[in-house]
Amino acid sequence: MMIKIALLGCGRIGKMHAATIVRSSRAELAVVYDPVDNAAEEVSRHFGCAMAKSAEEAIAASDAVLIATSTATHSDLIEAAAKAGKAVFCEKPIDLSLERVAACRKAIAGFDRPIQIGFNRRFDPGHRAARDAVRSGEVGELQQVIITSRDPGLASREYLAVSGGIFKDMTIHDFDLARFMLAEEPVEVFATGSTLIDPTLAQLNDVDSTMVIMRTASGKLCHINNSRAAVYGYDQRVELFGSKGMVISGNRKAHELERFTARTTGVGEPYLNFFIERYEEAFALGLQSFLKCVEENTVPDATFDDGEKSLALAEAANLSLAEGRFVKVAEVTR
Amino acid sequence: MMIKIALLGCGRIGKMHAATIVRSSRAELAVVYDPVDNAAEEVSRHFGCAMAKSAEEAIAASDAVLIATSTATHSDLIEAAAKAGKAVFCEKPIDLSLERVAACRKAIAGFDRPIQIGFNRRFDPGHRAARDAVRSGEVGELQQVIITSRDPGLASREYLAVSGGIFKDMTIHDFDLARFMLAEEPVEVFATGSTLIDPTLAQLNDVDSTMVIMRTASGKLCHINNSRAAVYGYDQRVELFGSKGMVISGNRKAHELERFTARTTGVGEPYLNFFIERYEEAFALGLQSFLKCVEENTVPDATFDDGEKSLALAEAANLSLAEGRFVKVAEVTR
Amino acid sequence: MMIKIALLGCGRIGKMHAATIVRSSRAELAVVYDPVDNAAEEVSRHFGCAMAKSAEEAIAASDAVLIATSTATHSDLIEAAAKAGKAVFCEKPIDLSLERVAACRKAIAGFDRPIQIGFNRRFDPGHRAARDAVRSGEVGELQQVIITSRDPGLASREYLAVSGGIFKDMTIHDFDLARFMLAEEPVEVFATGSTLIDPTLAQLNDVDSTMVIMRTASGKLCHINNSRAAVYGYDQRVELFGSKGMVISGNRKAHELERFTARTTGVGEPYLNFFIERYEEAFALGLQSFLKCVEENTVPDATFDDGEKSLALAEAANLSLAEGRFVKVAEVTR
Amino acid sequence: MMIKIALLGCGRIGKMHAATIVRSSRAELAVVYDPVDNAAEEVSRHFGCAMAKSAEEAIAASDAVLIATSTATHSDLIEAAAKAGKAVFCEKPIDLSLERVAACRKAIAGFDRPIQIGFNRRFDPGHRAARDAVRSGEVGELQQVIITSRDPGLASREYLAVSGGIFKDMTIHDFDLARFMLAEEPVEVFATGSTLIDPTLAQLNDVDSTMVIMRTASGKLCHINNSRAAVYGYDQRVELFGSKGMVISGNRKAHELERFTARTTGVGEPYLNFFIERYEEAFALGLQSFLKCVEENTVPDATFDDGEKSLALAEAANLSLAEGRFVKVAEVTR
Repeated sequence: MMIKIALLGCGRIGKMHAATIVRSSRAELAVVYDPVDNAAEEVSRHFGCAMAKSAEEAIAASDAVLIATSTATHSDLIEAAAKAGKAVFCEKPIDLSLERVAACRKAIAGFDRPIQIGFNRRFDPGHRAARDAVRSGEVGELQQVIITSRDPGLASREYLAVSGGIFKDMTIHDFDLARFMLAEEPVEVFATGSTLIDPTLAQLNDVDSTMVIMRTASGKLCHINNSRAAVYGYDQRVELFGSKGMVISGNRKAHELERFTARTTGVGEPYLNFFIERYEEAFALGLQSFLKCVEENTVPDATFDDGEKSLALAEAANLSLAEGRFVKVAEVTR
Repeated sequence: MMIKIALLGCGRIGKMHAATIVRSSRAELAVVYDPVDNAAEEVSRHFGCAMAKSAEEAIAASDAVLIATSTATHSDLIEAAAKAGKAVFCEKPIDLSLERVAACRKAIAGFDRPIQIGFNRRFDPGHRAARDAVRSGEVGELQQVIITSRDPGLASREYLAVSGGIFKDMTIHDFDLARFMLAEEPVEVFATGSTLIDPTLAQLNDVDSTMVIMRTASGKLCHINNSRAAVYGYDQRVELFGSKGMVISGNRKAHELERFTARTTGVGEPYLNFFIERYEEAFALGLQSFLKCVEENTVPDATFDDGEKSLALAEAANLSLAEGRFVKVAEVTR
Repeated sequence: MMIKIALLGCGRIGKMHAATIVRSSRAELAVVYDPVDNAAEEVSRHFGCAMAKSAEEAIAASDAVLIATSTATHSDLIEAAAKAGKAVFCEKPIDLSLERVAACRKAIAGFDRPIQIGFNRRFDPGHRAARDAVRSGEVGELQQVIITSRDPGLASREYLAVSGGIFKDMTIHDFDLARFMLAEEPVEVFATGSTLIDPTLAQLNDVDSTMVIMRTASGKLCHINNSRAAVYGYDQRVELFGSKGMVISGNRKAHELERFTARTTGVGEPYLNFFIERYEEAFALGLQSFLKCVEENTVPDATFDDGEKSLALAEAANLSLAEGRFVKVAEVTR
Repeated sequence: MMIKIALLGCGRIGKMHAATIVRSSRAELAVVYDPVDNAAEEVSRHFGCAMAKSAEEAIAASDAVLIATSTATHSDLIEAAAKAGKAVFCEKPIDLSLERVAACRKAIAGFDRPIQIGFNRRFDPGHRAARDAVRSGEVGELQQVIITSRDPGLASREYLAVSGGIFKDMTIHDFDLARFMLAEEPVEVFATGSTLIDPTLAQLNDVDSTMVIMRTASGKLCHINNSRAAVYGYDQRVELFGSKGMVISGNRKAHELERFTARTTGVGEPYLNFFIERYEEAFALGLQSFLKCVEENTVPDATFDDGEKSLALAEAANLSLAEGRFVKVAEVTR
């Protein structure tokens, strides 16, 4: 029996999820809703599914709810879906405010259906194989994690203005990936940043280039570097260094053509351009994993708790950036 | 309007084509036929399409016919589809006999709908980018083509016994790829081979390891090497060497994880295992290209003529292997 | 005319310098001195050069002095050589104490012969090409520098006990390399570390695994990670990321053999094992550069000032590690 | 005790050998001779060694003779050195005529000092590691050898006119390398070629682009491709394919810088330009191996017999090119 999915939010990421759902053999796109009618209509027409007049109506008509609306509405919709007893897949972040997330957590206490947060990178085959190499003991005791994560180009001013800042919008993926790899909570966070790409970002009290160091209780170290604009493309690397070896999950290209000229050798193609291309498999595998959880009523690989903990790291990073010190995560979660 | 496709032949490759058709937004799998009822039933049930009692019935119910039956039936079915005025996508080779192919060509003379032969590799993004680099002048005058093509393991005895020998079964893909890259007909062929993997193949008058050299009228040189069993996986490389540079279309892996141990560095994952995985994109792009030709009634990228010419190269290779000399292709096509 | 060199210090690094001098066509190893007679005798016999009874005697018999003694003696010997008017090549660090280095600087004020500090990595062809790519504008505005620097195995307890700690002993090379690449002074330093390899290092108040972030006045960001023990070998990578592109200077292997097995592809050889192998060319080029400066009385590429500034960064790192905050370099240099 | 070497021939390759000898700790360049006085004088002055008036005088003053004169004089000088009882290192080929080589072999019958032929590639660390992987059983039964060997640019007309043709001048290195890898004699040779780089080479009855296939008695297959002009540099690859795996000895670069731009990734440096740079280590290791043989009076790794057998393969290739057939090596050695 196909799982009926209600898609809330029909923007860029919503459309991508719609296409992934449609390709799945276990789910159907039952209904869509978007406060902007045109957006919902377009998806409804293209994929031949129903269109609800409200989020509530969409939720009611579904087995599971996929929340891809603007961040500010995520918590309300999670609560509404939970109240209706529907499984939830919610895009990251749950909210920009740790307080709101904590309140949401309390509001849905006792809810026993799966809630998965959209940390797609956990499902990327390369990143997952890296994690598995750690879990299997292949790299020995994990000592250092290095995450390089750079976008191919600066997002629009409109997007950035409501993004919540680089740590909650962009680095949050890396915070989650770090936790996934470390298998241990970071307890201290240092973060700094600069406006090297667009100096006017300072007006938004935001930065476009960041470097982070985190430390776990047992002393494991993790570095993250971010840039909003890598001209050579979307750069997504994870390096795991341990007592018995190292694994690196590298970038992907559309194909393996190499060029050799009078001045160069082994010239490779550009990297897959952005998250929808680079993490296409990850999105599909993440949805499959969610559907399995829905079918079997088990706990997803990226939980509400993961969403909350990554946000706490982002909050700690903001505090560190402001105060120039190694911030204890407990300071922001008390 | 969706193009209705009749799938003839529901074996391994037929099933793969069925899945590709179903994923396409321009075609529908209208009907399937297989002399073995069970095979057709399985595909019919899985993809929810009709099941014909005969090839003729299937052809009649379609806009285009995809022939994935055993090689011996290809020509008859091409003729039947052509007679019915339906576009044709036929798996390689058209037939094991050049005479039969020539007869088929005459039988369908004047047929004005697209016929595409299943030379999937032409549609592989890497190989195509390599060809484009030649066409654009990037490598200058093309001088040498080197094709490495090795299967991950020996096929079954049953398969090999009716395969027509390595040149018509396996190398034929490389002969076609060579022609695609050279953009000029090879006029001479030298081929040799050995039974290094399974000595009993000599009983089938076949070899499992081959090396070929071809030369075009203008002197361009092309080398092909084949093995029926590369333990490290399906090895598919194309190197194009010219006066201004070189391009190499290399192997693909499931992801880009590299491992570093006490004794090794940069250890990569195995290659995608076999043609269905390695050329998944190529099969999809090849079908899309065919559908476009059907819609616009244009000439496909891999024509009946391409099928015939590659078979002639295979025939010349057989003669060369037998006589130990550089065989003129004209000797076998007269 | 050959430049007569006095080698002070005949330990592992001294012997390596002796061999480099002997291979040079512009210099001769005139005389050696080591407080341990046996060590000096061995080098003297092996290379057929004179052996002095004191550092002063060796200095007097030379055109230039190469100081490869224990760190504690560096400043005294620099002062002695300067007093004698001889050019100086001194191994890093100048001293473990910033005060002593400042005093040395004052003591040799007005000295007008070349003093080069042994920051060999500046002369590595790959690292230098990376730097040149920045200088030429190829990567645009430099925004991020990532230095990975890991030793193949923990040094002896005796060595570590007098090393001055990881930042002054090991990271100092990376601090210098960072300054070389950034072409701008870091103004703030954050450092943390752990004893993940040998917990007993805590007894020495030292760490074996570190991560550092530095920031320049214009906002450029630099990350350094260090480990005392990478089982896969000496890991030396420099990544320079800018507005127009990125360059990465990677690791080197003894040769380019790749292995392919039933489970792996592209398996590479181990990296060159340690600094004497990995930076063999750099040591030779560094010496040549120094000899050119001696001949032409010009300023070396790695000056006394570079030695002092790198030590200041190490001192700031120590303070940051102790206090868990972003330390201004000016705090330690006041 | 240092081995006194007489260098006969002071051209480009002679000078390179002189520099290699001078760097060795086991040999000294005792005396040089060249029919062109200026050439000998230059080397004599530069390396501070004696200069003989005749080859005989040079031979007499030595322990071992290094023959780097023009090919036509090699056999005479080998005979002269053998007569004088001196060990011999002779550049390839021994002679352009198999008859002359056979006569030389008879003339020196019974000579019991080492004779090494200048097949430098056998001593390249990467190629040797590839061979060792075969010998150790790592690749299982060797089945296919693929040698790519392309010069960075066409030699001068003067050089080519006396080179003896591409097979005896250039491919002879690859014939030797093939024998080194196969550990079994090729018994059949097919060769073809074209003038794709300089059509006027046809006037010299020569080609600039070749492809060869050889087969051993047990059925092992070997392909060689050559070009006189690869714009991207000196291309030297050896691929060994067997029942348990594959090894590839690849090209070398001056350093491991990779560049990433708005349109490309992983852009590598050019390959080391030509044989003197690419095989610098191989030349040094080959000389060391020879000196060890001289000291211990053992058989070198590249013998007179190897020189003769590679020439026979070149002769068979010439016959194959002329007659367009798989030539038995026995046809040319009878």
